[in-house]
Amino acid sequence: MRRNKRPVPGEPENVAGNGLLDRRLFLSGTAAAIGNAAVANPAHAAEALPVEPWMKTPGSPFVPYGQPSRYTSKVARIFASAPGTTGTGASRTPHHLLDGMITPNGLHFERHHNGIPDINPEAHRLLIHGLVKRPLVYTLDALMRYPMESRITFVECAGNSGLLYQKEPAQLGVQPIHGLLSCAEWTGVRLATLLEEAGVDARAQWILAEGADASGMSRSIPLEKAMGDALVALYQNGEPVRPSNGYPMRLLLPGYEGNMNVKWLRRIKLTEGPMMTKDETSKYTMLQNDGKSLQFCFTQEAKSIITRPSPDLTMGAPGLYEITGLAWSGYGRIAKVEVSADGGTSWALAALQEPVLPMAVTRFRSPWHWDGGPATLQSRATDASGYVQPTRSKLIADRGARANYHFNGIASWGVAQGGEIRHVYA
Amino acid sequence: MRRNKRPVPGEPENVAGNGLLDRRLFLSGTAAAIGNAAVANPAHAAEALPVEPWMKTPGSPFVPYGQPSRYTSKVARIFASAPGTTGTGASRTPHHLLDGMITPNGLHFERHHNGIPDINPEAHRLLIHGLVKRPLVYTLDALMRYPMESRITFVECAGNSGLLYQKEPAQLGVQPIHGLLSCAEWTGVRLATLLEEAGVDARAQWILAEGADASGMSRSIPLEKAMGDALVALYQNGEPVRPSNGYPMRLLLPGYEGNMNVKWLRRIKLTEGPMMTKDETSKYTMLQNDGKSLQFCFTQEAKSIITRPSPDLTMGAPGLYEITGLAWSGYGRIAKVEVSADGGTSWALAALQEPVLPMAVTRFRSPWHWDGGPATLQSRATDASGYVQPTRSKLIADRGARANYHFNGIASWGVAQGGEIRHVYA
Repeated sequence: MRRNKRPVPGEPENVAGNGLLDRRLFLSGTAAAIGNAAVANPAHAAEALPVEPWMKTPGSPFVPYGQPSRYTSKVARIFASAPGTTGTGASRTPHHLLDGMITPNGLHFERHHNGIPDINPEAHRLLIHGLVKRPLVYTLDALMRYPMESRITFVECAGNSGLLYQKEPAQLGVQPIHGLLSCAEWTGVRLATLLEEAGVDARAQWILAEGADASGMSRSIPLEKAMGDALVALYQNGEPVRPSNGYPMRLLLPGYEGNMNVKWLRRIKLTEGPMMTKDETSKYTMLQNDGKSLQFCFTQEAKSIITRPSPDLTMGAPGLYEITGLAWSGYGRIAKVEVSADGGTSWALAALQEPVLPMAVTRFRSPWHWDGGPATLQSRATDASGYVQPTRSKLIADRGARANYHFNGIASWGVAQGGEIRHVYA
Repeated sequence: MRRNKRPVPGEPENVAGNGLLDRRLFLSGTAAAIGNAAVANPAHAAEALPVEPWMKTPGSPFVPYGQPSRYTSKVARIFASAPGTTGTGASRTPHHLLDGMITPNGLHFERHHNGIPDINPEAHRLLIHGLVKRPLVYTLDALMRYPMESRITFVECAGNSGLLYQKEPAQLGVQPIHGLLSCAEWTGVRLATLLEEAGVDARAQWILAEGADASGMSRSIPLEKAMGDALVALYQNGEPVRPSNGYPMRLLLPGYEGNMNVKWLRRIKLTEGPMMTKDETSKYTMLQNDGKSLQFCFTQEAKSIITRPSPDLTMGAPGLYEITGLAWSGYGRIAKVEVSADGGTSWALAALQEPVLPMAVTRFRSPWHWDGGPATLQSRATDASGYVQPTRSKLIADRGARANYHFNGIASWGVAQGGEIRHVYA
């Protein structure tokens, strides 16, 4: 592993091995050292700009609902479904081609258990029953009159990054490995408001939440969470929730594993205990070394991923790069993110993009002088509780070799001499 | 005007006239008084839910880029273009059908001066020249290596709400009157980083920013703003900027009037003074009573609008409603929003949705018990500088009768006996 070099006069000083620079570099006005401009000192600057064809003819007209550029068709989800089905599987967010904290609605990851239902909102109903003083049925129109709240919140599938449990590093990039994660602004009615209206019986300790898809996807949720920050979300990034994310309404349980955020929500039943539905027994449990499974592992623990540089993106010439990625924790705010370019031997503190919000992804950035040689890039998140994202080997030692959900260990990208980037274990 | 009523035992107390309730009502666990549920006490609760057709057949498959429900086709922009053109005009965001702070990319408002160019990002260049030490040309690929920052920021057209300068209230709703406003997370390279790389000549005090559309839209901007929080934005709500908002890159000047945030940015020229382009002389000036115009009115002052209830939405039965809307200021954070249901005679403090960010819209909410009678709904924003959104009559007295830009006075919705809602002056 390389060690910190002595600073070259006039060049920024390394703060960790293999070229990691101070996170405040670009606030300090010393950015003139970047030198990535395509053409410097064009002889006749204004003449260096051709008048392109799109400046010579009127552009296209207005449309009611806009779409991306035809030149960004690669900024798309990839997906796979179970044999014999078209809608049982998952689609993944292309984080290597995105930046910021918000995932646009067209690119939010999906996990469906029997496709996307085409729900008529006039016919849809939400029933609250079971251990309540009076069962209630809500239409979408009725819910629209209720007080609302918004939360910018990540949703992550429990199976995200599960490939890192494998013995050899899958030769894939950010999207197929870590793409079952997205972050949006969700707005809706607090579930507590509706449960209070129905009147919670003192015996109730859990709720069952059921979706209106053809799989009747359903999960048991502790009443405490339901009465806490849970939302019946009606809006996603400002507009009505997309069909693929639960239109006309979904449950939002900030920080909990993805499929508990039940989409197409049609029924909440208050119960004394968990209901042991097919969706929390046949899957979404954690198989131990002894063959027994842990059940009801709800919260997604602190985690981070580097989205750029990453496989599928080619390094250019040696020089200054930004290492950037996302960090999040189901237990609250991210406190810090560290980045390593030497496989964890030394770490530099990354800059965190404000606002840093609980249960939202936080974008981190670290300036990096790549000298053209080999490097192993890692990121390590610490959340406000003090929990530190573990190494892969520690996580597997703790969890056992048979686990397949909730992987939140440190991931590594290997940069080879010349700039090729591959998924590696380090 | 109605006065505060004495509280009825067991009912929430009014905090301002005509039914305005305490903003913390829904945090206090007294929400059982809402009673909007469509059906209470269904005799056989579970049986009250029909098994809809979409639960009986597999749903639709995955797609690379998702779209809204076919049942939300009204959640769309409206637009108008100048006679003989299809792309010279504006489209407007349907805020009465949205909630939260983020405007989804498909619904962001637009103002084009000659349509939307279809720019090939491989051919696009950004030139920085004029009073610099060395002119530089950037490709999109080159910019992608630079350090980035994100800002959740509103963009508002200087002409937004300009209809309120008219003598009689236009019989229109939120979208046609106030729809030239949107808010997104923008991510890109600080313009200061690029200007420092080019080397700013000491004589430079302004920049000219030019777009690559067929109108060559261009504006003069003080160098101080360019060296401050200005971004060359490459991402909008996480994904590449939409063509209608400047793909592959736009200037973002937080808090400044919309058209200065030059889309399809191709050229920045550093100059000693403003360039007096057609886009800052023939329009975007403020005509005074004496026939002279104020030029270079950049910042959008503190303002708020009630998005719901509003025209085009019908009030239902009397009872509890939420009054909600957006507040924003080009000078920084919103400090407070007050709501009136009696045309400004009395005011209640609205709840502000966190995070409250500088130069972003802030969602406000106020619980309201509508008794079924007439009401005049208003909102009044105060920003962190202490500036208070003025009444319409004070604004017009200050600005004169010939102004047509930068209207930020208080707007009013009149609720009639029976629930019809109209735009009124009050």
